[in-house]
This record gives sequence, C-alpha cells and structure tokens, in this order.
Amino acid sequence: MPRGKLLIAQGGGPTAVINQSLVGAVLAARERDKALPVYGARFGVKGIVAEDFVDLTREPEASLEAVAATPGSALGSTRDKPDLKYCQEIFRVCRAHGIGTLLYIGGNDSADTVRIVSEEAKNAGYDLRAIHVPKTIDNDLMESDHTPGFPSAAKFVAQAFAGADLDNAALPGVYVGVVMGRHAGFLTGAAGALRDRQEDGPHLIYVPERLFDPEMFLADVKDVYQKLGRCVIAVSEGIHDADGTPIATNLVKEVERDAHGNVQLSGTGALADALTGTIKERLKIKRVRGDTFGYLQRSFLGCVSEVDRREARDVGRQGVVAGFDTGRDGSVAITRAAGPDYAVTYGLVPLQAVGGKTRVMPDQFISERANTITDAFRDYLRPLLGADLPARAKLKAPHVAKLAASGTGT
Amino acid sequence: MPRGKLLIAQGGGPTAVINQSLVGAVLAARERDKALPVYGARFGVKGIVAEDFVDLTREPEASLEAVAATPGSALGSTRDKPDLKYCQEIFRVCRAHGIGTLLYIGGNDSADTVRIVSEEAKNAGYDLRAIHVPKTIDNDLMESDHTPGFPSAAKFVAQAFAGADLDNAALPGVYVGVVMGRHAGFLTGAAGALRDRQEDGPHLIYVPERLFDPEMFLADVKDVYQKLGRCVIAVSEGIHDADGTPIATNLVKEVERDAHGNVQLSGTGALADALTGTIKERLKIKRVRGDTFGYLQRSFLGCVSEVDRREARDVGRQGVVAGFDTGRDGSVAITRAAGPDYAVTYGLVPLQAVGGKTRVMPDQFISERANTITDAFRDYLRPLLGADLPARAKLKAPHVAKLAASGTGT
Repeated sequence: MPRGKLLIAQGGGPTAVINQSLVGAVLAARERDKALPVYGARFGVKGIVAEDFVDLTREPEASLEAVAATPGSALGSTRDKPDLKYCQEIFRVCRAHGIGTLLYIGGNDSADTVRIVSEEAKNAGYDLRAIHVPKTIDNDLMESDHTPGFPSAAKFVAQAFAGADLDNAALPGVYVGVVMGRHAGFLTGAAGALRDRQEDGPHLIYVPERLFDPEMFLADVKDVYQKLGRCVIAVSEGIHDADGTPIATNLVKEVERDAHGNVQLSGTGALADALTGTIKERLKIKRVRGDTFGYLQRSFLGCVSEVDRREARDVGRQGVVAGFDTGRDGSVAITRAAGPDYAVTYGLVPLQAVGGKTRVMPDQFISERANTITDAFRDYLRPLLGADLPARAKLKAPHVAKLAASGTGT
Repeated sequence: MPRGKLLIAQGGGPTAVINQSLVGAVLAARERDKALPVYGARFGVKGIVAEDFVDLTREPEASLEAVAATPGSALGSTRDKPDLKYCQEIFRVCRAHGIGTLLYIGGNDSADTVRIVSEEAKNAGYDLRAIHVPKTIDNDLMESDHTPGFPSAAKFVAQAFAGADLDNAALPGVYVGVVMGRHAGFLTGAAGALRDRQEDGPHLIYVPERLFDPEMFLADVKDVYQKLGRCVIAVSEGIHDADGTPIATNLVKEVERDAHGNVQLSGTGALADALTGTIKERLKIKRVRGDTFGYLQRSFLGCVSEVDRREARDVGRQGVVAGFDTGRDGSVAITRAAGPDYAVTYGLVPLQAVGGKTRVMPDQFISERANTITDAFRDYLRPLLGADLPARAKLKAPHVAKLAASGTGT
C-alpha cells in the first residue's frame, strides 16, 4: 500500500452513477485505513492544478451514501484535456500534498491523463499509484465489456423510446429522436431495447459506425410509413456522410469546438429539425416530430439501472484496492463472465490500452442495411438494464361490426 | 342508469395515466352490470364517425390492468376538433349502436365536443348521457384543482430539471430547457419543484402567462451567471412577445398549423436554439446548452406520480358513476379539500364551464418580476407529485489548505 494520501477526481460528462464510484472508492479506503486522508479535487484536473481540494475523510458515511444516489459529478467535472505540461503540473501538486494514490474517474481522455501523470511520477522516481476508473454513457472504452454510466443512460433512452412509440401509435406520424453518441452507437442502439413486437418502434436506428445516406434514410422511412402508417426513428447525434462530416455540422452555422477540437453536437436541436424538415418536404408527410434527448439522458434524476448502480460502486472500490495492492498503475476494466447468467469480474488493464482510444459497436450489433440493431445487441444490452424495467401492454379487444357506415343508421 | 351501451374514447395528447381513466371506467361499468356492452372507439372521435370500435367487454381484467399501467392512449387518439356537422355524425353513429353513455377522456376541446353531442342528443330526444373525463398535462381545465396527467408530467419535468441542474453544477454554463405549454405555465413551473437551496436551479422560470421581454431575460441571465457562475433556465414553449406572438413562431420558417389553427410549437428545437444563440452572442458566455423536452415529458415509460395514477383511475370511474346515476351530462372535476392533509373530491360540472376554455396560472403562482415561480405554487404542486420522489445530496466536506500554489511544492 502506497504511503501517501488518496486523491480522487471526476472528469468528463457526468452520469447517473458516477458518484457511486466516488463513494465506493472513499469507503474502500476508509475500510482499509480509517486514518488515511482522502481528498477530492473539485472540477477534475482543473481542481488538481488549482489545489481546489475537499477533505472527504470528514464526510460522514450517511452523507456519502446520499451523494452516491445522486446523479451528476458531486466533485464537479471538467472538459480540460491536459497536455504534458498540464500533467506535469498535476504531478507537482500531487507531490506537494503527499498524494500516494490518484484515482481519476472518467472516460478515455481521463485515462490518457492518468497515463501521462503515471509516466511523470515514474520519471521523477516518486511513488504514485495512478488509477483510472471507467465512466461514460457512450460505452466506448476499450478493454471493458461495458462502462459504468452507460446502463443507466441506456435505460433512460429505452424507456423514452418505448414511451415515444406509444405516443406515436396513439397519434400516428413520424418521430425522430436524436441520442448522444459521437463515434459509438451503443446508446442510440438502446432505443430498441424494449421493442417486443414487429410493429413496435423504434422501427429504424442509425448509428455513427455506418455512413448515413439521406436517400437510403428517406427510402427506409417511406417503407415503414407505408406499411404501418407511422414511423419512429432513433439517430445518433454523430451520424455522418461519406466524407466523415457529421450531418449535424453541415447544419450548424457557427460551429463551436471544445477543448478536444470536437464540434458541439449536444445542446442543439438542429439535427432533429433538419431530419424532420427533410422528411416533411420529400415524403409529404404532415405530422413529423423531432426530439433531441440532450442532457436529460445522462443526468435525469430517478432513472438508474440497479446493475449500473452496483457496478459503478464496485469499480470505485476496485480502483482503490488495485491502487493499494497491485503496485501497478492501470485502468479498471469490466469483463463479462461466460455462461447463461449475467456476472462480471474486474481487472486492471494498461492505461495505454484505454487512454485516448475509442471502442465502437462491433459489426454483429448492427443490421446489414445499417438501419437497425440486431438481436445480438439486444441480448448484450438486456442484463445491463436491470430487472425492474417498466412493461407496456396493448388492448387485445376484438373489433365490433359496423352498423351505421352506409348512412342508414336509425 | 341509461339503457344503452357504454362507449369510451380518448382525445388529444396522450399522458402517462390516461389509460388508468379508461380502465377505471371499464371496470366501474363491469362492477355495475357485467352484461353491459362496453365499446372503445379507436382514435377518438375519428373512430366514432368511422365506427372503428373494439369490444372492451371481452378484455380480461388482468389485460386491462396491464394497459392501465402503460402510458399513451391505448385506444388511439386524435387532434380532430369536431364542428357541429361532425358532432351530428358522432351522434348518428352512437344512436345506430344503441349507445346510452358516451365517455370522452380528453382536454377542453374534447369537453366542447361532448357538449355539442349532448345538445344534439337532447334536440333529438334521444336518451344519451354524455360525460367528459378530464385529462391534460397542461393542467389548463377550468373547474378542477388540477387535471389527471399533469402530476406525472410535472414529476418528469421536476426530475429532469433536478438532474440537469446537477449536470450544470458539475460542468458550469447556461442551460435552457423548453417545456410544453402554449397558454398555461403550470408544467414549466414544475421545473422548480425539487429546488431546495438558493443556489439550486432552475434559477429562472418563464411562463406564457406573462410577456417575454428578451432584454429583461438577458439581464436576468447575466445577473444569475455573475452571482453563481452558471444559470439553469426553464421556459414554456408558448412564451410570447408584447403582440402575443409566440417567440417560437418568429423563428420557424414554415409554420405548421394544426386542426385548431394553432402553430406547431412542439417537436422542434428552434426556440431553445434561438435562446441559447442569443445568450452566447449577447452575453459572450461560451458554454450555453439548450434542450427541448418534447414528447419525453408526456409519454416517458416509467415516471408516474402515484397520486396521478390513483386520481386518473378515479375520474374514469366517477365518469361512469355520474353517467349512470345522475341523469345529467357534464365534466368530471377534481376539488381539493381544505385542510393540512391532501385529499380530493370529485364532482360533475356543466360541460360549457370546461369546453373550449383555458385555465392559466393564478397571479400568486408567478413571481412579481415574472422570472420564477412562488412558494404558493410549490405548495400547490408538492402533494400532486407523490411521496416517492428521488432526493439529491451534495458533498459537505471542508476545503483543504493549498500547499503548492506558490510554485514551491517539493
């Protein structure tokens, strides 16, 4: 076990369960050594370089448990993606405070930051355990079967589409729901998780792993609409054309880029509006509606997968255990056990295998025409959503014979 | 009790609990007379004139209960607003099928349809009981303390804003959420239901009961942002300028009007995008995000107020009881009992008091500057949301003294 303090930070987009990981880590450290100082950095790496720390050792367990059940990043987060100089500053501050274990809860950018800090410590001959704890609703980390945060966001998206489909069945038309996902379509694919019957929506699902061809899209929509008199569609915000240009980018006048050089895709309804506009214009369908799920899907208070809640707690705990016991730096990874019953194991994988890399949907999860997901994806997703999913039912009552149709009713 | 069959239809926008009212009505009729034929019209009044009926008498109770727990209109709905001729056709079909009681579950337009059909039956000397059963997420029906469907939608909006506020606190900036509500701001006001502390969002709430002045809006946003470093805002889709023109209308190029002559406000992100664009441009704030809650807020599978569930069942039941026993036509209304504990009673009010009329927020629910809701509104809303609301918690851990800030850390 390293001799220094434990420092925990949270980076990137918040999730419904990222605080479970924070609290799992704090409690694991407390179990091991009640006297060990545990700090939390406010607003991720930004808070580390600014020395904006809170003393989590003094947070009572009941208070920690209440925070664990709260979505959002309780410590605050950041979009900063540290370069070498930034990472050197992180290391300098860690050293000044006698940090022995650094735990950074985040996505692949956060893993990359941990990797650089780890190297800095090694170069300086300073005994620091640098551990990345996985988190992202995008489910796009290498080496893990899935990532904490994704199951809860997937549950939200699945329930939202099940509801939107019922709404669309009651007032028929075309409905387009835009889901987060720049490069990976896992979350958008979750739109189809609660689809039971052939006529249930979403009838079409488009993910960024495949080219988005507007003409094929219109043909698909037309086909479903002609068959069912309605059509429910899920698209990833990151769908792009043959040049790799996101469909959304072509429509946004003033392009905003984040610290990673990425164009802003969330927080605007432009893509949904463009798609519904095209459907109205080209297919002459009158009732066409579009929603952009935006921030609701990652931070909604009260839609958590029980599996996600448990696993997010576990990866935080495992991060501390690995930091204290293995003598290695790395990223906590989730492996799904083989066999009919769902179970996972946790391991520590090299930081360079996760940092800065993006995992996308494997081919067998996407239909050949690339306009929906496969049963293989549904089978993969189902156990992650937990057992307490709401059901939906339809009337089965038989039709009544017409009496007045001829206009001769009494 | 009228001698004819019972016919039930659902109109207008679906809600999370409209099927509770349907099932409440079917079961109440079944209790009274097991042999009484109960029909359901598919797609509201459209299904009545088309004689598109299903025989609900043959739907088993277990199946009805499963449907009751499902959002959306199980019978299908319509936006048709019948004129006199249309209502005469409704009456002609009812007569042909020997309908003794007509139950229409819907909003103020549906109440108005019931009123005209009721008059037609009277003019023809035909013994028909025509009953309106209330339903609308807008909460805008006269004569009722609140309307079934509103509490569940309000719960969704409250939980969504609580989550969006946590997200915004973790990654500070400005967040604008657009909520349904053309004339009434009740649902938008619900955004503030879970606000505990002064620093919690939404910090600003704009409802259509007041003029929306863009300059005052920008001043409000600037003020909050300067104080807190962030700002969460809820606006109704129906906010309008001094001429009464919706802010959204000014931005939509091709205006779509529905059968009621109303401009389409939902199913487009234009208003949110325009407001975030204005904030970015005028206040020079970089991270500004907008979401349009769209259809999620009225049909999300798995966000129901227990109070709403119970009351929606009750108004369906009360509609049948009133139709069978009172000898009067009317609209079922909910009255809140005086006293510290929440309780309601049901009554039957004249159709003309509800039909085609719109209730808006009373003055005491809106702050003087018209940029938020009052405690009076929160007190009104709180019991409707039910007891099982998720909580949110913040870390209370004290800050740690800086050591490396001078750049002299070891």
